[in-house]
Amino acid sequence: MAIERFLEDFQAGEAFTSQSVTLDAAMIKSFAAQFDPQPQHLDEAAAARSFFGGLVASGWHTAALTIKLIVESELKIAGGLVGSGLDEFQWYRPVRPGDSLRVEFEVLEIRQSLSRKDQGLVRLKIATLNQTGSPVLTLIASLIVPRRPQKPA
Amino acid sequence: MAIERFLEDFQAGEAFTSQSVTLDAAMIKSFAAQFDPQPQHLDEAAAARSFFGGLVASGWHTAALTIKLIVESELKIAGGLVGSGLDEFQWYRPVRPGDSLRVEFEVLEIRQSLSRKDQGLVRLKIATLNQTGSPVLTLIASLIVPRRPQKPA
Repeated sequence: MAIERFLEDFQAGEAFTSQSVTLDAAMIKSFAAQFDPQPQHLDEAAAARSFFGGLVASGWHTAALTIKLIVESELKIAGGLVGSGLDEFQWYRPVRPGDSLRVEFEVLEIRQSLSRKDQGLVRLKIATLNQTGSPVLTLIASLIVPRRPQKPA
Repeated sequence: MAIERFLEDFQAGEAFTSQSVTLDAAMIKSFAAQFDPQPQHLDEAAAARSFFGGLVASGWHTAALTIKLIVESELKIAGGLVGSGLDEFQWYRPVRPGDSLRVEFEVLEIRQSLSRKDQGLVRLKIATLNQTGSPVLTLIASLIVPRRPQKPA
C-alpha cells in the first residue's frame, strides 16, 4: 500500500506509470450515451461516414479514463486527488475499440500557496499513450495538496 | 431542428445557453465508480471527513455533463463536435447532490486552418454555472469545424 503524500513529499521530476485499460465498443458507446451522444461514438455505420472513418471514443471518455488510471496508480495524496485546473489539454489521435491506454505522468512543479499556509499546488505533466506508445492526450493538471500537519509544540 | 453549421456560419460574440441538469447522489456515485473512485465522490460518511465536508461530484463528472449539455444545445456543427484541445480549464467550487448545472458559451474566435483548406478552428469560451449562477467550471475549447464544401464549377 502506497503512503499518502503531503506537499513536502513531492519532488520535481519524479515520474509514474499507470496500469493500462483496453477499450471495447460497448464501453465507448456506454460512455457516449451518458455524456457525449454523437454518432461517431454511438453507431458504427454513422461513425464510418464521419470525420473519423469508424467508431471512436469520446475525447472525454479518454480524459475520464486518464483520471481513473491516475487515481488507481501508486501516487496517493493525503485527502485524495483534488484538481484545481488544467492547461495545455490536447487530443492527438482517436481512440478506437481494442486500443489500450496507459498514463505516464511526472511532477513538473511544487508551489506553496500564498493565501493558505496549510496547502500548496502540485503541477503534473500527464500523457495518455496508446498501445503503440503514441500520445492520445496530453495535459498539465494542477492539484491541491495539503501540507503535513504540524505537531503542537 | 437546428441547422448544421460550417466554419463560415460562425460569428465571434455569438452566445448560447444550454438546458440544465440536476445531479443526485446516485449519479455522482455512479460516475465516480466508473472513472474517479475516490471516497469524496463515493461515500457520504467518508466525504464528510474530506476536504469538501460532504459528497461532491467528480470534477470530471462536471466536465462530462458540460459536454453533454453542449452536444444537446442548439449549436449543431457539420460533422459533429470534434475537440482538438482545451485551455484555461478551472474548477471553482464543488457540485453537490441537488445542484443544477447549465452551460453558457460564446464564440471567442474563428480561425482558418493554415495546413488544411477544408477546415478551421472555432474557440468557445465555456462557463458551467450552478443554480445560483456561480461558476463551477470555466474553460476554452478549440473545435475542428469543416468549411462549407465548394460546388464544383
